Amino acid sequence: MKRRPVVAVIGAGDAPAAVRKLAFEVGREIARKGAVLINGGLAGVMESAAAGARKEDGHTIGIIPGYDRRTANRHVEFAIATGIGEARNVIIVASADAVIALRGEGGTLAEIGFALKFGKPVVALDSWPEIAGLNRAETAADAVAIALRLAAAKSRRRR
Amino acid sequence: MKRRPVVAVIGAGDAPAAVRKLAFEVGREIARKGAVLINGGLAGVMESAAAGARKEDGHTIGIIPGYDRRTANRHVEFAIATGIGEARNVIIVASADAVIALRGEGGTLAEIGFALKFGKPVVALDSWPEIAGLNRAETAADAVAIALRLAAAKSRRRR
Amino acid sequence: MKRRPVVAVIGAGDAPAAVRKLAFEVGREIARKGAVLINGGLAGVMESAAAGARKEDGHTIGIIPGYDRRTANRHVEFAIATGIGEARNVIIVASADAVIALRGEGGTLAEIGFALKFGKPVVALDSWPEIAGLNRAETAADAVAIALRLAAAKSRRRR
Amino acid sequence: MKRRPVVAVIGAGDAPAAVRKLAFEVGREIARKGAVLINGGLAGVMESAAAGARKEDGHTIGIIPGYDRRTANRHVEFAIATGIGEARNVIIVASADAVIALRGEGGTLAEIGFALKFGKPVVALDSWPEIAGLNRAETAADAVAIALRLAAAKSRRRR
Repeated sequence: MKRRPVVAVIGAGDAPAAVRKLAFEVGREIARKGAVLINGGLAGVMESAAAGARKEDGHTIGIIPGYDRRTANRHVEFAIATGIGEARNVIIVASADAVIALRGEGGTLAEIGFALKFGKPVVALDSWPEIAGLNRAETAADAVAIALRLAAAKSRRRR
Repeated sequence: MKRRPVVAVIGAGDAPAAVRKLAFEVGREIARKGAVLINGGLAGVMESAAAGARKEDGHTIGIIPGYDRRTANRHVEFAIATGIGEARNVIIVASADAVIALRGEGGTLAEIGFALKFGKPVVALDSWPEIAGLNRAETAADAVAIALRLAAAKSRRRR
Repeated sequence: MKRRPVVAVIGAGDAPAAVRKLAFEVGREIARKGAVLINGGLAGVMESAAAGARKEDGHTIGIIPGYDRRTANRHVEFAIATGIGEARNVIIVASADAVIALRGEGGTLAEIGFALKFGKPVVALDSWPEIAGLNRAETAADAVAIALRLAAAKSRRRR
Repeated sequence: MKRRPVVAVIGAGDAPAAVRKLAFEVGREIARKGAVLINGGLAGVMESAAAGARKEDGHTIGIIPGYDRRTANRHVEFAIATGIGEARNVIIVASADAVIALRGEGGTLAEIGFALKFGKPVVALDSWPEIAGLNRAETAADAVAIALRLAAAKSRRRR
């Protein structure tokens, strides 16, 4: 079985409406392109991205910090209860072929750090200008296109 | 979205043919009943159970110990790369509504321990007679039926 | 720097007085022999073993499940806040040269499972008769003597 | 037992000599002030900081990514074998009262992200000018003084 590309969408759990709207568009676009969405499964950017992906019948995976899958937002199709707290951020990044970062705080910064460490492509969508080494996009469609292109290029190199 | 029940199938990564055959039947039955299979994503019981579930178009999740999703067996639809080594056993159990245990060794025993700790129903399929507090089944169909019945009963109590 | 041997003492967090007394004696004996005690850092067997070790000025390490080191019992000299919940059991076992198991429940069983998986010597002290492959002791002094002897033998083989 | 303050020193595992020298001075100063050093236990900044702390008979804790404690550098007094890979970065930060960051790459950035998330004081020592919300120091002595002062202030507020 050939697996579909997996894209992580990361950003603030407590995000303003404009950022949540952008996250929704990113999730929708990921599903339209046939990719799987993975993220932390809770609120804010995580919830809006999952809502967008489900709107287009995409698969959504939520890697939650606690043991109770009922804490995952309702757009998470597969809730993975890690119980490992914030360390679950590593799993989100490690399980993705590319990462799209929206505005966020310390937790998002940690995920970007791990993505750089693992050599995963990161696309910063209207965010994180201070961090070097990221790809840049201004629209949801561009972010997803860049992420999938970089993921495919990396996949080819690994074969 | 109402999520489907999730069943973990655990057992030896290096299992004899008879145990792998039983795991295949368990996986197939889980998919037939519309449940999702989760396990450690590698060889032996893990691979055979996933093969059985995919044969019936069921969803399969593999929670792998390392960072490289290519180590997941080819019947894993969604490969979660944890990088947390043997600690990923906790995630398998925590993410399931019920656990079906086949013959195994230390890693399987650890998973049974966590299931007891978390109060998850465990069905021992022709295995683990020495451990108290487990439900018992002799056939794959029985094991899945018991697991799903106990999972549903627990889900009702939590509402 | 040559590191001292490290012994994990595992058992119920909610243990009866007789078991706690035995844990205290085990901790005391570990310190007397110049070894370091490691365990989960909370109550019951964990607390009593640490109290015994500190009584003899031994070093004690508590690998706690949460992020707040104030939840470690007061006999823990070095509190490691993992935040990874029950998965911290793996760390306790992996960081020890030998494991002494007292009576316990699911969490203790999981630790025994990991110890068997990792090939760490396990000494069951008046407990776990149903699990094969463990060493047996009836007194605290015997348990510690066996644990340190097996740890030293294993250390020699690895050189 | 009142526990000593714990300071994490983070930075590149593959660091140039000038950065390693700075790390050594930081470790030495931590020990002189009676604090405990914690870090990832491997090479570069981690090894030099531990060497400095041991030079002054300070306690050093290494939270290593794998299962084999022999991979810890020889200045680690207590080697904690997590087996959880890069996720062990969370434990380093969570177990410290303050964090001193030297130059590093993705892994160090992840640790800074977690420190911000957890509200731990971070002192950037001649490094990370691009990240907002960090305290700044130019010398090892200043970095340790600031870290211990902030840790003490936070400890008082929590009582």
